Amino acid sequence: MDDNVVGRAVSRRAVLTAGAAGLAVPAVAAGASLAGRPAGAAAGATRKVTIYAEALPGGLYGYGLAPGRATVPGPILEMWEGDTLEITLVNRTDQRLSIHPHGVDYSTDSDGSPLNASFNGPGETRTYVWRSREMVAAEGRRFLPGSAGYWHYHDHAMGTEHGTGGVAKGLYGALIVRRRGDLLPEKQFTVVFNDMLINNRTAPDTPMFEANLGQRVEWIAIGHGGTFHTFHLHAHRWADNRTGLLEGPADPSAVIDTKDLNPGGSFGFQVRAGEGVGPGVWMYHCHVQFHSDGGMAGLFLVRNADGSMPPGAEDAIHRFHGHAHAAHHEGVLE
Amino acid sequence: MDDNVVGRAVSRRAVLTAGAAGLAVPAVAAGASLAGRPAGAAAGATRKVTIYAEALPGGLYGYGLAPGRATVPGPILEMWEGDTLEITLVNRTDQRLSIHPHGVDYSTDSDGSPLNASFNGPGETRTYVWRSREMVAAEGRRFLPGSAGYWHYHDHAMGTEHGTGGVAKGLYGALIVRRRGDLLPEKQFTVVFNDMLINNRTAPDTPMFEANLGQRVEWIAIGHGGTFHTFHLHAHRWADNRTGLLEGPADPSAVIDTKDLNPGGSFGFQVRAGEGVGPGVWMYHCHVQFHSDGGMAGLFLVRNADGSMPPGAEDAIHRFHGHAHAAHHEGVLE
Amino acid sequence: MDDNVVGRAVSRRAVLTAGAAGLAVPAVAAGASLAGRPAGAAAGATRKVTIYAEALPGGLYGYGLAPGRATVPGPILEMWEGDTLEITLVNRTDQRLSIHPHGVDYSTDSDGSPLNASFNGPGETRTYVWRSREMVAAEGRRFLPGSAGYWHYHDHAMGTEHGTGGVAKGLYGALIVRRRGDLLPEKQFTVVFNDMLINNRTAPDTPMFEANLGQRVEWIAIGHGGTFHTFHLHAHRWADNRTGLLEGPADPSAVIDTKDLNPGGSFGFQVRAGEGVGPGVWMYHCHVQFHSDGGMAGLFLVRNADGSMPPGAEDAIHRFHGHAHAAHHEGVLE
Repeated sequence: MDDNVVGRAVSRRAVLTAGAAGLAVPAVAAGASLAGRPAGAAAGATRKVTIYAEALPGGLYGYGLAPGRATVPGPILEMWEGDTLEITLVNRTDQRLSIHPHGVDYSTDSDGSPLNASFNGPGETRTYVWRSREMVAAEGRRFLPGSAGYWHYHDHAMGTEHGTGGVAKGLYGALIVRRRGDLLPEKQFTVVFNDMLINNRTAPDTPMFEANLGQRVEWIAIGHGGTFHTFHLHAHRWADNRTGLLEGPADPSAVIDTKDLNPGGSFGFQVRAGEGVGPGVWMYHCHVQFHSDGGMAGLFLVRNADGSMPPGAEDAIHRFHGHAHAAHHEGVLE
Repeated sequence: MDDNVVGRAVSRRAVLTAGAAGLAVPAVAAGASLAGRPAGAAAGATRKVTIYAEALPGGLYGYGLAPGRATVPGPILEMWEGDTLEITLVNRTDQRLSIHPHGVDYSTDSDGSPLNASFNGPGETRTYVWRSREMVAAEGRRFLPGSAGYWHYHDHAMGTEHGTGGVAKGLYGALIVRRRGDLLPEKQFTVVFNDMLINNRTAPDTPMFEANLGQRVEWIAIGHGGTFHTFHLHAHRWADNRTGLLEGPADPSAVIDTKDLNPGGSFGFQVRAGEGVGPGVWMYHCHVQFHSDGGMAGLFLVRNADGSMPPGAEDAIHRFHGHAHAAHHEGVLE
Repeated sequence: MDDNVVGRAVSRRAVLTAGAAGLAVPAVAAGASLAGRPAGAAAGATRKVTIYAEALPGGLYGYGLAPGRATVPGPILEMWEGDTLEITLVNRTDQRLSIHPHGVDYSTDSDGSPLNASFNGPGETRTYVWRSREMVAAEGRRFLPGSAGYWHYHDHAMGTEHGTGGVAKGLYGALIVRRRGDLLPEKQFTVVFNDMLINNRTAPDTPMFEANLGQRVEWIAIGHGGTFHTFHLHAHRWADNRTGLLEGPADPSAVIDTKDLNPGGSFGFQVRAGEGVGPGVWMYHCHVQFHSDGGMAGLFLVRNADGSMPPGAEDAIHRFHGHAHAAHHEGVLE
């Protein structure tokens, strides 16, 4: 186990990290983004970031942190509660588009919706401001929720008033707001169930996520499109609460390994890769049977702690690519 | 902020309040309904209320608190844990119908189901008794849940054994059971996702809910019909627990702004209107893309604290009514 | 109320109990299974069980604890956190099949997936090992979740790489992992919503579950197939957390009586039969209207405390069998 993940210098952490399952284009180096803030620092830092929306091969669109670097999904954006992100969105396409966040605070002119005339025309640049906050005391020992959560952002203007065209074609990504004291992961994976696709791909071309045994891995799961889904990860489980970890022995949250993942929803959790089960190739997939049969499945490769391949892993990967999803839904047996 | 909402005399509060998005027929005045009970009073009050089920224009049906006053959704019914509601249901239609509650206690003869011969024939009057209770200690420091929750009621007899005809045509409403100490809202909105409709309407004729900046607003969301949905509210969020507020700094609940809202389910939450984001026109909508494109969207108008219109609000409302949902689902971009 | 359920000798409890809604074949006697472990005992017991997968009439398949005893759903498997189950699966069919668990720990060779070459060929016997664990402290007063939960197991190899054929035809069952101190039920019911069927049956042939007034009854609800569902139980409710009971007066969990039940998901809860509402015939059903109209409904018969039939119960059962679901979805009223 690698317990020094907590001890490492938080200031080296990138607040904006590249999408783990980037489409074709390589991930943007963390150095290109903004440095994190130590856990003890005062709330309220404002960071500026420029995001480029671009057309991609295959009719897709993506967000990226540099020109020519757009990915599907877009980069993982992160904030500490209290921080502000000023996003300059450069629209390098010939379509109307925007960026609309979940979970954070914004004025109507940063809504990202045509309703509020908040979008980029073709070729236009526009700034969107996202603020976050800590919980505050309300009456009766209750608290107004802060912004911390596993959120997401997406287009809200391409194709329809709700961005249906942009969302269908890849304009989406993860947004994480962390509460002071939250544990930081060593690896992050964004999984977007978008109609019958995962990150706009289908098996066996879906992402294969990799980690070494014991690494703290963070999954951010996002739903989009017009279809219902259930996200399932083999051999790992998490608490169905804000962080995926139990917040003490009295935390009443259910522990789950399958969760509904429907359009507009998102959740996240951290696990130790292979903890209690060992290294190997583990499936993640939509548990709606004809969705997984149809290609909504991918691989989580847990390597040995030293990074080497565990026994059987190559074979499993070969099977996945060779024939695992060749025969779609062979039908009901008699 | 208006913190004196807690301090105001609870006894002035109507236990039965009119549906905020009443259909055509004006809301029933609170004075016509039953007075609330002070928070310190002993549990167990019994209240009687007469509800009228009636046909409405357009083939709809509704429940109302007075003859000729039926609305879609019906009136919000409220109880404190421990209270009993004796509902005399007057069926002014020529159809078999009933009223079936979620969350509260009732004997089989108040089940509202044909299974238990619990319904009103055409023109008949019948009394249904709903009881509620506080949590009680069980073994092992555990507690049997009390009745507090954001529930709902609906027909269970029109058209089919499950009331599919009545539910489809508007026979539904919100039922709230409050726990001692719960915060009371200043405004209440009932949102029912019923197949492809909101409160049996489609945009731009869906309800526009209104509040002044900082008002404590309660949303009650209910699912009906045969389709899956995800409720999303722009620029506001809530804890995914019983009240929507964090019940202390250690409350592990996820904070969300999108939640599955499927047939028979319900949830509720309170927010301060426009808190942290300011006044303006904010959308609520189903986040299933072709549902929102198809008209499952409405407006939450947050006025300035003095009730005046904020800049841009009129324009947004005009856009919503003018063209926002004229082109349904323009299709996938190439 | 029967409070001595806690006091009874836990060692008499069967860890593997027969499916409450066994299909055609009688339930396996508890004596054929493994004895439970006293709550104070050390964690880590290993138990061996042999499960037989067999073809059943009507094209179904089932798991059973003895040859010729397969049921749909299969037997309820139970563990205490820390226990290990070594399952010898005897495949008495001419199909490829496996057993894949949710929630517990297993190596890739016990994954039950063709991906990991983990399945039984026709006629083959194979051992699968499932381990469980208690929560362990992580950094920052957080805890890695233990295995306790209302889980399930199912085929992952028949028909497709995801076992779609086996799941469709009955190869599924409940798996419960209990935490030290959890309350034990007197009765257990497994309800599987599998496409448009309940335990692969349709009304009025769906299971009628029975209990005496006040008995502690445990429901385990499992979703399978390709359709979304919402489980609703009349006149009873539970906390939406790990156990269904509130874990103290500050437990923030919502209390519900309807919950999404989608493919691959599961949940469970305990209620006192008829508590606060009395004996009688109560429906459980999918609340998606055309699903309940189409036969996704069953009965929960709560007898008097002495086991006798309450007034009206026979009539309700007769109605359910006679005509309750004869007319499927009579259509929308005008």
